[in-house]
Amino acid sequence: MTVSLISRYKKLLEKAKDTVILQTTTSIIHWDMETMMPPKAIDHRSQQLALLSQIEHKLSTNPEIGKLLNEIMKHPEYDRLDNIQQRNVYLIKKEYDEQIRLPEDLVSRTAKQKATTIDVWKKAKANKNFSILKPELERLLSLKKKAAEILMKVKETSTSYDAMIDIYEPKMSSETISKIFGDLKEGLISLAGECETAKKQPDVSILKRQVPIRIQRGISNSIAEFVGYDVKSKEAGGRIDETEHPFTIGYYDDVRITTHYYEENFTSALFSTLHECGHALYDQNLNPELMFQPVGTGCSMGFHESQSRFVENIIGRSREFWLYFLPRLKMLTGRILSNVDLDAFVFAINQVKPSKIRVEADEVTYGLHIIIRFNLEQDLFGDKITVRELPEVWNQNYKDYLGVDIKNDAEGVMQDTHWASGLYGYFPSYTLGNIYSAQISAALEKDKLDWRNQIAQGNFLEIRRWLTKNIHTHGKIFEPSVLLKTVTGEELTVNPYLNYLNQKYSLLYNF
Amino acid sequence: MTVSLISRYKKLLEKAKDTVILQTTTSIIHWDMETMMPPKAIDHRSQQLALLSQIEHKLSTNPEIGKLLNEIMKHPEYDRLDNIQQRNVYLIKKEYDEQIRLPEDLVSRTAKQKATTIDVWKKAKANKNFSILKPELERLLSLKKKAAEILMKVKETSTSYDAMIDIYEPKMSSETISKIFGDLKEGLISLAGECETAKKQPDVSILKRQVPIRIQRGISNSIAEFVGYDVKSKEAGGRIDETEHPFTIGYYDDVRITTHYYEENFTSALFSTLHECGHALYDQNLNPELMFQPVGTGCSMGFHESQSRFVENIIGRSREFWLYFLPRLKMLTGRILSNVDLDAFVFAINQVKPSKIRVEADEVTYGLHIIIRFNLEQDLFGDKITVRELPEVWNQNYKDYLGVDIKNDAEGVMQDTHWASGLYGYFPSYTLGNIYSAQISAALEKDKLDWRNQIAQGNFLEIRRWLTKNIHTHGKIFEPSVLLKTVTGEELTVNPYLNYLNQKYSLLYNF
Repeated sequence: MTVSLISRYKKLLEKAKDTVILQTTTSIIHWDMETMMPPKAIDHRSQQLALLSQIEHKLSTNPEIGKLLNEIMKHPEYDRLDNIQQRNVYLIKKEYDEQIRLPEDLVSRTAKQKATTIDVWKKAKANKNFSILKPELERLLSLKKKAAEILMKVKETSTSYDAMIDIYEPKMSSETISKIFGDLKEGLISLAGECETAKKQPDVSILKRQVPIRIQRGISNSIAEFVGYDVKSKEAGGRIDETEHPFTIGYYDDVRITTHYYEENFTSALFSTLHECGHALYDQNLNPELMFQPVGTGCSMGFHESQSRFVENIIGRSREFWLYFLPRLKMLTGRILSNVDLDAFVFAINQVKPSKIRVEADEVTYGLHIIIRFNLEQDLFGDKITVRELPEVWNQNYKDYLGVDIKNDAEGVMQDTHWASGLYGYFPSYTLGNIYSAQISAALEKDKLDWRNQIAQGNFLEIRRWLTKNIHTHGKIFEPSVLLKTVTGEELTVNPYLNYLNQKYSLLYNF
Repeated sequence: MTVSLISRYKKLLEKAKDTVILQTTTSIIHWDMETMMPPKAIDHRSQQLALLSQIEHKLSTNPEIGKLLNEIMKHPEYDRLDNIQQRNVYLIKKEYDEQIRLPEDLVSRTAKQKATTIDVWKKAKANKNFSILKPELERLLSLKKKAAEILMKVKETSTSYDAMIDIYEPKMSSETISKIFGDLKEGLISLAGECETAKKQPDVSILKRQVPIRIQRGISNSIAEFVGYDVKSKEAGGRIDETEHPFTIGYYDDVRITTHYYEENFTSALFSTLHECGHALYDQNLNPELMFQPVGTGCSMGFHESQSRFVENIIGRSREFWLYFLPRLKMLTGRILSNVDLDAFVFAINQVKPSKIRVEADEVTYGLHIIIRFNLEQDLFGDKITVRELPEVWNQNYKDYLGVDIKNDAEGVMQDTHWASGLYGYFPSYTLGNIYSAQISAALEKDKLDWRNQIAQGNFLEIRRWLTKNIHTHGKIFEPSVLLKTVTGEELTVNPYLNYLNQKYSLLYNF
């Protein structure tokens, strides 16, 4: 390879590295906003975030990047760059082509509007008053739509909403999602019906026993230890904090999760910690050689959610996990749970019951919450509904899909932060993640890794190593569809997920 | 005023605003590093800080700033800009002229080296082993010296060390400091001698009573409440965290302090909280109209320290404060301090005793710790001593000035973070702050504000208002010497400080 190609490639990567480092810095600032920031600073913070996004936009649209890309891609020896190098070039070019078309002003206005809208959303939700949120949400959505229309042309997607999806799940289309969600919907509704009408029903009263928050913190730490997410040692690369809504942020050696402890609902924090640990393991176990390169990050949000949902649901809600962990939980909680029976507990944490709140939904009805949001996002971006109409349409959908009556918008359309955070196109990732996670666990079994047995013995290490080797370490080297095929040998298919659910719940509910 | 002058001035301020916002962002990242960051992230963090400093350097050397400055300053109607506007232009020009001469590479290498050196300092201090720190400190000092030599030419100071001082105390020179420290040294040594040989001596055993950290946190909150530093309400603009070394960072609506709780030395956190609260009040009570402008920050570090030391010492170690606060302290600590006598307590917290650790020093010997550091910094920048020689010279100085034997470098030359953080030229600020604080309290009295009586009644509000009106609100509109003259009617003089000390300690020690 000629020196000029290598040196240009290195120069290009240096530029990309700055962008990555600025992004990880912005993450910390976001994290601080959610966890530590004095409330008075919100306006100041929104200006900081706007400036950071402006600078990031400037860094990633530096004309020198365009020049280097051009020189590298037209270089006669371009093909001698290896796969990873070519992928880095591709990812930088994709970002560059997109960002260069987004006006700087749009970028910084969006960042400011996002911070404001999140803040107003919190107040509106606390006051159960959508009308406070409405004007801000309209402004934010309008900015997002503008960006989506620009991105649609660059990304050559068939709708502007598809351009949003592509941000989180590259190359995925709303058409594919519609098809797969269609199959899923039938399966979920039918399964939910069977569970609801089954004779055998769980006793969930044990889940309402009061567990002091001090003890719940200990449970979270114990879970972190179990999965190998270090938050305690002198070499720790993680930490657990408390926020209204749990999340994970981070990159390699600084990956932080949050949770929310409720005294009278201890499994909430327990499962959210398992969930966020799944994310954290992904970010921590990326290949260190790829750090600060564009390929050195998660493959897609769907894949990210596959990791969190694998740990939360497939592992965390399995009988095998509790065979190991219930005695530990009993030790940590003393008398509170001492008389709890394993099977009764496993049944209780897997109760299927249509509900209003997505993050509290069981595995079976969860997908329906997502399908509703996916349809609404499509309609918002397709100008079929307006922000003003959202609450009504939302409530009607919840009645139709889940049979529940939404009493106010705090438990309805305002329950999630996503739309107020501008994260349109993100929701499908959750269910794609569920579908991937079932395909992945089938692949684990095909690989003769008896994960159920391992978990029952309290051993998560082998599973984590398998996930790291087969998924984490590949970062963003492949498109999600390619990685899925590589790991599982299959295309995207809803069957393993429906099989997993049917098998699990027919056993639990005895039908 | 012509439109062109106004519009250029506004454009210039917009550019300067970005720099300020980036600086406040960097502050949060620094704060996070000291308080929350998982230890594994240190290298990543140093890269983030390096990038931020590089970007800040780029923002403040944007050629457009040079062009705007030129156009504004040569504008025929320049004189019609008001004082504050002209001061903003001056401050932007000063920063621009300096930064433009500092090579980008030097700036980012210094930022990286700083993060590394702080990290290594922590380890070296824990291991009481200066040789671990030495090479990193040499590298950092050498980078700092390079910058100082460049800055010396721009700032037209007579030595490179003076260029460092000017960063923290604009227009102050090492010559002036030497003179004033000379007077001070005589006074302090003589006063310390009188206290040491006095018959009446305090019983400090009461200060060693064990106070659980949970209770100490309550004391800190109570102090914050007393001075009006809001860390609790829904409108709070502050917070208190725990770090090895207490500090304050922040800007207007997000000003954070830290402290360190020692179970067997409860007054350590108590006085450090008072100290940092003094800083916090300054930053919180700047004139909101000046926010994000170059004038919208503290006048100098000396003035900043004047506020912290006023609250910590003049207020916090006064009999009047404890007349009010001791009953509260007793309430918070229950039986632990119930039998403590007011005068015995006030005497104990004002014990004069030469010691090894600056931050634990009493008011009388404190200045000697600073004078030693000031002399060593002068010698380091004057190439009269090397980093290698520091420990020996340090120990000899401590023997000569304070009569104490330093047993290891952790309690010697490595006790402070400043040199490992690259903060050369900062130390004199502490003692200048003490001197200013005494001049300020004399001015308070001249203004007929009977602060002793106010404090005794638990009323800090009037004093705070006076400080805000006379100092905080002026931000950086004036040079420190001008602000001092405006507030106190006097030039810099050591007499009020020595008078204050002599009066206070002759009363306490009865000589």
